[in-house]
Amino acid sequence: MRTADLKNSSGQPKSRHLWWEDGTLVLLDQTRLPAEEIWLRLNTLDAVVEAIYALRVRGAPAIGIAAAYGVLVGMKEHTNLPLDEFKSHFQAVRERLFKARPTAVNLGWALGKMAGILAHFSSGNAQVLYDRLELEAFTIHSEDIELCDRIAANGASLFPPDTRIITHCNTGFLATGGVGTALGVIAAANELNGVAMVYADETRPLLQGSRLTAWECGKLGIPCRVITDSSAAYRMATETIDGVIVGADRIAANGDTANKIGTYGLAVAARAHQVPFYVAAPYSTIDVDLGKGAEIPIEQRPESEVTTFHGQPVAPQLTGAWAPAFDVTPAHLITAIITESGIFRYPYDFS
Amino acid sequence: MRTADLKNSSGQPKSRHLWWEDGTLVLLDQTRLPAEEIWLRLNTLDAVVEAIYALRVRGAPAIGIAAAYGVLVGMKEHTNLPLDEFKSHFQAVRERLFKARPTAVNLGWALGKMAGILAHFSSGNAQVLYDRLELEAFTIHSEDIELCDRIAANGASLFPPDTRIITHCNTGFLATGGVGTALGVIAAANELNGVAMVYADETRPLLQGSRLTAWECGKLGIPCRVITDSSAAYRMATETIDGVIVGADRIAANGDTANKIGTYGLAVAARAHQVPFYVAAPYSTIDVDLGKGAEIPIEQRPESEVTTFHGQPVAPQLTGAWAPAFDVTPAHLITAIITESGIFRYPYDFS
Repeated sequence: MRTADLKNSSGQPKSRHLWWEDGTLVLLDQTRLPAEEIWLRLNTLDAVVEAIYALRVRGAPAIGIAAAYGVLVGMKEHTNLPLDEFKSHFQAVRERLFKARPTAVNLGWALGKMAGILAHFSSGNAQVLYDRLELEAFTIHSEDIELCDRIAANGASLFPPDTRIITHCNTGFLATGGVGTALGVIAAANELNGVAMVYADETRPLLQGSRLTAWECGKLGIPCRVITDSSAAYRMATETIDGVIVGADRIAANGDTANKIGTYGLAVAARAHQVPFYVAAPYSTIDVDLGKGAEIPIEQRPESEVTTFHGQPVAPQLTGAWAPAFDVTPAHLITAIITESGIFRYPYDFS
Repeated sequence: MRTADLKNSSGQPKSRHLWWEDGTLVLLDQTRLPAEEIWLRLNTLDAVVEAIYALRVRGAPAIGIAAAYGVLVGMKEHTNLPLDEFKSHFQAVRERLFKARPTAVNLGWALGKMAGILAHFSSGNAQVLYDRLELEAFTIHSEDIELCDRIAANGASLFPPDTRIITHCNTGFLATGGVGTALGVIAAANELNGVAMVYADETRPLLQGSRLTAWECGKLGIPCRVITDSSAAYRMATETIDGVIVGADRIAANGDTANKIGTYGLAVAARAHQVPFYVAAPYSTIDVDLGKGAEIPIEQRPESEVTTFHGQPVAPQLTGAWAPAFDVTPAHLITAIITESGIFRYPYDFS
């Protein structure tokens, strides 16, 4: 990856939703999808903070990359300051960006990487330091692109020609700096052997599948039809499905995988139909400190995410909902876990 | 069942959404649920036709009952006509009601029953004939109530005390003239031994579970929480579920059952968790002319039911969807089929 490839939009691959261009963070506003494609040109710190806070950029890796570029946006006017003042200003910028979404792990991680550049910078003026920060932001971005590419390349050959695939939630380029995880594998399989159809689970309650995955497939020229989550099993019963592939939120040492609610039911259906079930994720998703899935804490979402839609009630007032954000798929239902470091197969040994 | 029980709302059971009262069809407007409970008093033929056409009343048995009462609404002002003119007027009323929803099988069936009264009426004036029609309408309604009660009584003892149940779509009193089919069984189980929790699949795409089943459970005082369809398997993995119970659209001679899309995936999940899976339906749902489920034609719904919500797009323009209205659950996944004639168990022999 040459950093020049990241510097402008000419020749941008179709699977890119954010980049650095002429001192500006260019970003696709994901809150407007799929109805509208609004490209934002963020050239003030306020604008970047607002975009992160308002989820205009989402997906763990993408948030980290946006924060790194956000540092550049916040620092670029200050390269004529004395070095000490420039460094002080960085701390203020870092704090503002961090507070935009303090629970996003990758945001803190990317800001920490940028801070590391400052900590180790000893000789040179503010402009030189700024250039180092810019290089670090490009590195953060390009490493994510390469990570996605390697996952995609590793997984692509798992699918036969003209394959039919079911996927769940959103795992494509909108969630990462590169081609994505599970959808990256699908895109690579499409280039290698052709994909006949992606069935995108709509992914209730927040519909990331119909809103985002279907949009990504359209951009990539991959045939895609949306299905309600409850249709997936019947699709397996009525048509040859060559594989199911999903991303992962967190993977335990034994391979048990936490991912978007609905993943587990999909894995149960896949096993019943002898359809291979794949997980695609960065190796860093594997948490070897967690022995098994039961130790993964499962976030409960507000019940209103299920009982209302766009602010309109779809259930009687006071009706409760059970609304876990994730479920845990036991390792024995997962045919293989695809990472940038290679493909792991059950029983899992990640060491 | 005394017909007097059907004639007025005093002492109406809480599980009743339509009845005949003082020459008026009283009907809960289901298009306004769950946001509002609007009771309509329909005393013109136009109003009844509009209510059927606009789906203010839905569910096969309920539509038939509404049509029978609709005949009374259309005829009640004409009992002073000569008998021949009264009979001619009936044909006009019948035609208008039939055209309100010509594909609804129970509508044609109920109107045919009313026409049979005319055909066999030989002595007496229009008022006497009208009284016979009224009696027939009550019979149609009360037979449905009794049918539901018998299904409910047969199924109730299948569930242990303080049971936890998952159900799918809407099968309660809003869909029938009585307590319903699957939800009728749940209500009877609640009275017999107590129901600790009903998890109502929201039932995408039309959300009959969250909109209607949750509302019915509220009226019946049965604890209920809504879940996204894709959460059902994970609920079985994380809590003891004593049974899944659903209705049926059509049952083949071997027990294969067509029902709302999502039923099959739920049955697959139930089997994987060794949770009993029950179907509750009138015996008439069994079509012995169909050898197996593969012969049941499956209606495809408009793709926009999946790709839009309340008229707003939830997928990119031009994105396709695969949107079957029903799926087929093979008999071997169904623990028992509960009818008014008794409980049948796999392997099924309905003769």
